[in-house]
Amino acid sequence: MNAISTGSERSGTGAGRLIGVGVGPGDPELMTLKAVRALGEADVVAYFAKQGNASHARAIACGHFRAGAQELPLGYPVTTELPKDEAPYRAAITDFYEDAARSVAAHLDAGRTVAVLSEGDPLFYGSYMHLHVRLSQRYPTEVIAGVTGMSGCWSQAGTPIAQGDDVLSVLPGTLPEAELTRRLAEADAAVIMKVGRNLPKIRRALDAAGRLERALYVERGTMNGSHCERLAGRADVPAPYFAIVLVPGWGTRG
Amino acid sequence: MNAISTGSERSGTGAGRLIGVGVGPGDPELMTLKAVRALGEADVVAYFAKQGNASHARAIACGHFRAGAQELPLGYPVTTELPKDEAPYRAAITDFYEDAARSVAAHLDAGRTVAVLSEGDPLFYGSYMHLHVRLSQRYPTEVIAGVTGMSGCWSQAGTPIAQGDDVLSVLPGTLPEAELTRRLAEADAAVIMKVGRNLPKIRRALDAAGRLERALYVERGTMNGSHCERLAGRADVPAPYFAIVLVPGWGTRG
Ligand SMILES: C[S@@+](CC[C@H](N)C(=O)[O-])C[C@H]1O[C@@H](n2cnc3c(N)ncnc32)[C@H](O)[C@@H]1O
Ligand SMILES: C[S@@+](CC[C@H](N)C(=O)[O-])C[C@H]1O[C@@H](n2cnc3c(N)ncnc32)[C@H](O)[C@@H]1O
Repeated sequence: MNAISTGSERSGTGAGRLIGVGVGPGDPELMTLKAVRALGEADVVAYFAKQGNASHARAIACGHFRAGAQELPLGYPVTTELPKDEAPYRAAITDFYEDAARSVAAHLDAGRTVAVLSEGDPLFYGSYMHLHVRLSQRYPTEVIAGVTGMSGCWSQAGTPIAQGDDVLSVLPGTLPEAELTRRLAEADAAVIMKVGRNLPKIRRALDAAGRLERALYVERGTMNGSHCERLAGRADVPAPYFAIVLVPGWGTRG
Repeated sequence: MNAISTGSERSGTGAGRLIGVGVGPGDPELMTLKAVRALGEADVVAYFAKQGNASHARAIACGHFRAGAQELPLGYPVTTELPKDEAPYRAAITDFYEDAARSVAAHLDAGRTVAVLSEGDPLFYGSYMHLHVRLSQRYPTEVIAGVTGMSGCWSQAGTPIAQGDDVLSVLPGTLPEAELTRRLAEADAAVIMKVGRNLPKIRRALDAAGRLERALYVERGTMNGSHCERLAGRADVPAPYFAIVLVPGWGTRG
């Protein structure tokens, strides 16, 4: 990487190196050469996962771990009983990220290179950034960009997403319905992430914004068992975590 | 790739295969394993370039061309004398894409596998999509997602771009100033592409939207000679084609 002026390459004393590694949308072949090289050099490979669940990022990347690399799973606390907008949930999550940063820092202080896996691209709605903001000023840090989930999804669907003067809005499906509707009505092209249990609300917002006919639903893009269909024709059944809605901006122009 | 329902895998008679290959933002190591494999299998490698100029995508990817692969440069016509919003320019560009599609189709009809290189991701503001819309219904087609220029830029800058409920707007710098201003004021996070000669206008729009202080300017992200600085502190000198402006949505939160 070339030197840049953000201070993210500031170095500790004899400290190890932190590497945020984007592993791409799901197909292990969509990892970059640079991610593969970084994993071949890492002493420690860390990844987030829901407690008791396997890590998707680990499954994508594990074929490239160095023999003898130490694994550091960072298991989210179980918070299903806490309302997401309230202080106890926020406090539990903040404590968790503080603890995770301390675990990673202990390895860095011991001079080890720590690769933190991230689905898609690390700095695009990724958990890695919670470690990045806590550690990158204290340790030499590098971020390896990855193919995002959305790129994997529109490529698999074979759908040009935006061209020319198109404005593309990336919208979290967690937004309130009225805001989703307003923002969809204003965008030439849109990507809705974090679909899962928000899908019925997303469908209503697309309909109200006059965008439902153009919308595509992509599940598990580039992974095994992936699937793509027009959202308007989809049965009203629950959507999994790895699902996205695309509103192409450039369907008919040549 | 898994079978999908868009018809983009429909097959001609004994025809070759069209592959849109994303080569990433500039650093050749940010190519995916899948892109490298596709280039190792392609009989013909096509790429767009301004006439008389070398192709950036070719420079990124050429280390992986198969020995004996045929190259098919697709040289944009010189249209600098034509006003961009008017019919003669549009007609010249449409003719050019029609001709380019015919050149590629001739190889496909001869049973050859044609890889079309695309900077970043092929279906994200890329020229490849002009071939895709003309050919993907007639020939077996696959698109290999790539790391976008914007991901390369925010990774190199070490700047988390969006998190949680952030709305991220991707805005072409070619938009009128009033529209840029309005859209910047409404976004939590923004990426402005196609900066080049639009930079003075972009700066005014950011200022009017109250976003100039947060804006980062990244030139040639992940390429040789790349460079990142706060836009507010940048001298008012011209920007090259490979320049982007980032407005991070998540600078201060933990
Ligand atoms: C917390 S965000 C992480 C995004 C990731 N850092 C990236 O660059 O794509 C997770 C959301 O991304 C979307 N997503 C990521 N990968 C996907 C895939 N392969 N197929 C469908 N959706 C995906 C889903 O909407 C999911 O809820
Ligand atoms: C026509 S768009 C093509 C985008 C490409 N398909 C992608 O996925 O990034 C070209 C614009 O992308 C931005 N861009 C692409 N790569 C870049 C890089 N490495 N550094 C800075 N800007 C870049 C610039 O704003 C440039 O004008």
